[in-house]
Amino acid sequence: MVAPALSFTPLPGLPAVRAGDDLAGLIAAALERAGIALAGGDVLAVTQKIVSKTEGRRRALAQVTPSARAQALAAETRKDPRLVELILQESHAIIRTRPDLIIAEHRLGIVLANAGIDRSNLDGGEDEVLLLPEDPDASALRLRRALERASGVDLGVLITDSVGRAWRRGTVGLAIGTAGVAPFCDLRGRRDLGGRPLQVSEIAPADSLAAAAVLVMGEAAEATPVVLIRGASGGGDNMPARAALRPRGEDLFR
Amino acid sequence: MVAPALSFTPLPGLPAVRAGDDLAGLIAAALERAGIALAGGDVLAVTQKIVSKTEGRRRALAQVTPSARAQALAAETRKDPRLVELILQESHAIIRTRPDLIIAEHRLGIVLANAGIDRSNLDGGEDEVLLLPEDPDASALRLRRALERASGVDLGVLITDSVGRAWRRGTVGLAIGTAGVAPFCDLRGRRDLGGRPLQVSEIAPADSLAAAAVLVMGEAAEATPVVLIRGASGGGDNMPARAALRPRGEDLFR
Repeated sequence: MVAPALSFTPLPGLPAVRAGDDLAGLIAAALERAGIALAGGDVLAVTQKIVSKTEGRRRALAQVTPSARAQALAAETRKDPRLVELILQESHAIIRTRPDLIIAEHRLGIVLANAGIDRSNLDGGEDEVLLLPEDPDASALRLRRALERASGVDLGVLITDSVGRAWRRGTVGLAIGTAGVAPFCDLRGRRDLGGRPLQVSEIAPADSLAAAAVLVMGEAAEATPVVLIRGASGGGDNMPARAALRPRGEDLFR
Repeated sequence: MVAPALSFTPLPGLPAVRAGDDLAGLIAAALERAGIALAGGDVLAVTQKIVSKTEGRRRALAQVTPSARAQALAAETRKDPRLVELILQESHAIIRTRPDLIIAEHRLGIVLANAGIDRSNLDGGEDEVLLLPEDPDASALRLRRALERASGVDLGVLITDSVGRAWRRGTVGLAIGTAGVAPFCDLRGRRDLGGRPLQVSEIAPADSLAAAAVLVMGEAAEATPVVLIRGASGGGDNMPARAALRPRGEDLFR
């Protein structure tokens, strides 16, 4: 029997988190309770939701005053003007709109619906939303360093989010923050079976791992926010996820 | 120790395939040699390259006569006019071009570079290319039925390809054909931790699995064209991958 090359294990027993919590400490404790000893090369995929919550990124809509621009865009898209105000504050540019949908370039450079602002899995009711982490690459690096200290082995960390695609139904996981996992990997110079240079010259390991990790996390009430990935080839050292953003000059779909 | 929820195992020892080969038979034999007994719910991810090869989808560029339209587009994009002719034949529409790049809507509805035509991993030298399978959903269903007969258990099959993204560097795997794995899954009606209806209403399980499977397959000479996925929740019965195409009227990026 051949051993799996790559496996995804959801981490059970992580408690609900609050602003100011030590997320790395909570993850290390949950790993210990689950009897999981981290090994060198392990990667932890962590949903942005719990990173954002520990970093105090909740916002109460009641405290948001929509600008005139937010009110106009809200009328056009039939969205809550206070939510639209936060979308505008979190974005560099609005890329496309239609009723019920605003696709924005987040200030992190990621193109996604509602600038990544989430209304799910908050206990504050209809009035609370959650912004993306301030700097997910920095969050990933902090988690990596703290978990490496706790475990004594080299690790990778992915901060994941769930995003829609331009031409396909359904969301997939994406790595919005990385540390110790390559966001992209240049294969130029490698050869195919026929000895020719590879046609595909860049692959996206971090996003590929995030896709399966987010599937394992699930989206509903029984969701698990942290998944252990074993067998990923890592690499990329501390190359940040923002390195995977397509340079503006190469963008054909803006 | 918690068991992995999801694992990916590359299948060793599959021989190079030729047009007319019985791919299901070759996969079943390789599984047996590797000592892998398929279990109910297992999913086999199979790269489109070997499906296309067994289906006789190689084309010799020397036998292609470029049309005037192909010659004009080739001049504009600095590509081989014979390759551009095949891209046009395989496409419904050209979506974007720039030097060295043609993004097309393949006749299957998938938006991808060069209409999915591949020049890697062919032993015919510079002059041969490989088209996508004629109908990858039908290919997936045939493989599923044949492997279910051989193994006696319920299986899923994904036909994968590797595609670029609009706003991010690096390719990720996509499920261009599915049988027994849901291309998308509607979560509407489910509730989050706070009891609110989920904000994310559709996820894309087949593409999420394909992403990690293609990472495990690799792209270079040592690539393995078949990966066993264990722990996927399956579903979707025989819903085809084409069901995951975003309806034209909802497309904001054409």
